[in-house]
Amino acid sequence: MSKLKIPAPYAGRLERLRTELARRRLDAYLIQNRMDQYWLTGFTGEDGFVLVTPRAVVLLTDGRFDESARRKAPWARKVLRKIRTPERTAQYIRRYQPRRLGFDPAHFSVADYGAYRKHLRPTRLVPVSGLILDMRLQKDAGEVAAIRRAIRVAEQAFRKVAKWVRPGLTERQVAARLGYEMQSLGAQEASFPTIVASGPNAALPHYEAGDRKLRANEGVLIDWGARVGWYVSDLTRMLWPGTIPREIAKIHAIVRQAHDAAIAFVRPGVKGSEVDQVARRVITRAGYGRQFNHALGHGLGLDVHEAPRLGKGSDGRLRPGMVVTIEPGIYLPGKGGVRLESDVLVTETGCQVLSTLSY
Amino acid sequence: MSKLKIPAPYAGRLERLRTELARRRLDAYLIQNRMDQYWLTGFTGEDGFVLVTPRAVVLLTDGRFDESARRKAPWARKVLRKIRTPERTAQYIRRYQPRRLGFDPAHFSVADYGAYRKHLRPTRLVPVSGLILDMRLQKDAGEVAAIRRAIRVAEQAFRKVAKWVRPGLTERQVAARLGYEMQSLGAQEASFPTIVASGPNAALPHYEAGDRKLRANEGVLIDWGARVGWYVSDLTRMLWPGTIPREIAKIHAIVRQAHDAAIAFVRPGVKGSEVDQVARRVITRAGYGRQFNHALGHGLGLDVHEAPRLGKGSDGRLRPGMVVTIEPGIYLPGKGGVRLESDVLVTETGCQVLSTLSY
Repeated sequence: MSKLKIPAPYAGRLERLRTELARRRLDAYLIQNRMDQYWLTGFTGEDGFVLVTPRAVVLLTDGRFDESARRKAPWARKVLRKIRTPERTAQYIRRYQPRRLGFDPAHFSVADYGAYRKHLRPTRLVPVSGLILDMRLQKDAGEVAAIRRAIRVAEQAFRKVAKWVRPGLTERQVAARLGYEMQSLGAQEASFPTIVASGPNAALPHYEAGDRKLRANEGVLIDWGARVGWYVSDLTRMLWPGTIPREIAKIHAIVRQAHDAAIAFVRPGVKGSEVDQVARRVITRAGYGRQFNHALGHGLGLDVHEAPRLGKGSDGRLRPGMVVTIEPGIYLPGKGGVRLESDVLVTETGCQVLSTLSY
Repeated sequence: MSKLKIPAPYAGRLERLRTELARRRLDAYLIQNRMDQYWLTGFTGEDGFVLVTPRAVVLLTDGRFDESARRKAPWARKVLRKIRTPERTAQYIRRYQPRRLGFDPAHFSVADYGAYRKHLRPTRLVPVSGLILDMRLQKDAGEVAAIRRAIRVAEQAFRKVAKWVRPGLTERQVAARLGYEMQSLGAQEASFPTIVASGPNAALPHYEAGDRKLRANEGVLIDWGARVGWYVSDLTRMLWPGTIPREIAKIHAIVRQAHDAAIAFVRPGVKGSEVDQVARRVITRAGYGRQFNHALGHGLGLDVHEAPRLGKGSDGRLRPGMVVTIEPGIYLPGKGGVRLESDVLVTETGCQVLSTLSY
């Protein structure tokens, strides 16, 4: 067993996990989800596992990630598998002789489950939903700082692109430039495919970026984010080359009001559905309720979409340390659309808007 | 049921799938994997399903993808779910009253399986491994053309970047520029995070791109690809700002020989392991067998890594229409590394190298 001290924050996270395991009478926990692995150890490899027992943390990885494992989690035990089949991997796990081995059923395929159940006998695989995901809900100071960095990179890139955007460029060119600027500023990648939706395309909430050229006097909706040190940002802003068409200006004002009202309402103890309702009421009263056809927001962290959800039926209550998007929109088919999206930290007393771009 | 004619190639693919379903006494097949959905219908949405019965093709999607479904597969039946829980989704599936409903256990989580099994009763969920994946192995002419486009975009972008690369740029800047050029040329995105590994970093087969600055007289390994119309390319080339260090030049010649020998050997009927062995023998004889520590290649199509694999133990035989990468490498820890990667189409009589960049 390694003698190296486990650094914060991993020591604390492992302790929390082990407390949960004991509570559930589990002898070990097997983690396949890469972001859960990263959160728990600072290391993530492809198609490997992290195994946590009461006394050991084992990285079941392979030669491709040897160097990375050594750098990121030198305190963990490392197993370099030459053959990565369930059969051979199960042999390593069996050495720890767990009787009850927990796993996350949302991040384990039916095929893997069948294979591991067979090869791990007599170990029993026990599904435990969202154990680590729940621990990831409330971000610590280091995580909030990481999300802030991801926001800064996205915003700096946007400022550069906003100065350069002009009619005649294609949506795809704008998306490409935004990606380039984010990566140049230190992003690993865009945290999701950048949406650049011009004119009527902005009426499609899930449009990405195509060959349409930007035109003067139309809105351009940009929904983008950066992944920096695995943490992500997710923002939406409008650009207006020329003047804003009248109806678009009108819905922009309504969306802005809904966005601001929702943010003013965010605080610990309120339900996700209630925040959604605050924004939805503004838009509905203005006569556009049916044109706001998606949820208000979602949690943000190592994944672009994680808990909590802010939508109809979201019964969970906000807690300090959660980071959520607030992103109301109004979409007018054939005409255009407006969405504004900010990233917001729930604090002890209310919330703090982490994003800084004007809107 | 829709009266619209199903266009080729989807009509043929659906017919093949239905033949397989009949052979397995399945009443329907439920597809969650997005690339399988796309291959079968031309449509892919997020967290939805495609349901295929003997008489219907049903897109279980939601409002976000309404427009896209209408454009991509107007001939399919469309169900816009307002609530996307397994419980509600199961209600739609039950309307078709399948007794035995097939699904792919590699693309279905244990959590979903549990929920759908419960809510679909008395329908029985039947795992069928790799049904569509197997059909995707041999590409038709349209798919080969799509892969060629993805290669062209990647290559054109690389040529631009190669002219511009110089000592002093960071690896990340090079990766960012390559991504920008690919997207500007029509790529949806980089098909995977671009690897730019300079000097000693090239000894890490799985390094991505960091803040290290390129220096003169060192090799730079670039492994990149484009996704164009969902199909991907995957290439690796070396750049040499300045002169090539002697040992690196030596291993470059060996890797090139291994690469060429493997390609000369590729033809229908040979096993993946045999192709790997041809390249490995060249490198082993030159004394670097242990420094070639990964498989020779993998299939390519809608996924960057799909069947067949070309490595030790790959017993499957190559068939016409398969597209595979050939990517031998030699890695010298602390010094550097060389990998060369081409995309190759298996033809009736041998193979055709689809990539055209010199190496």
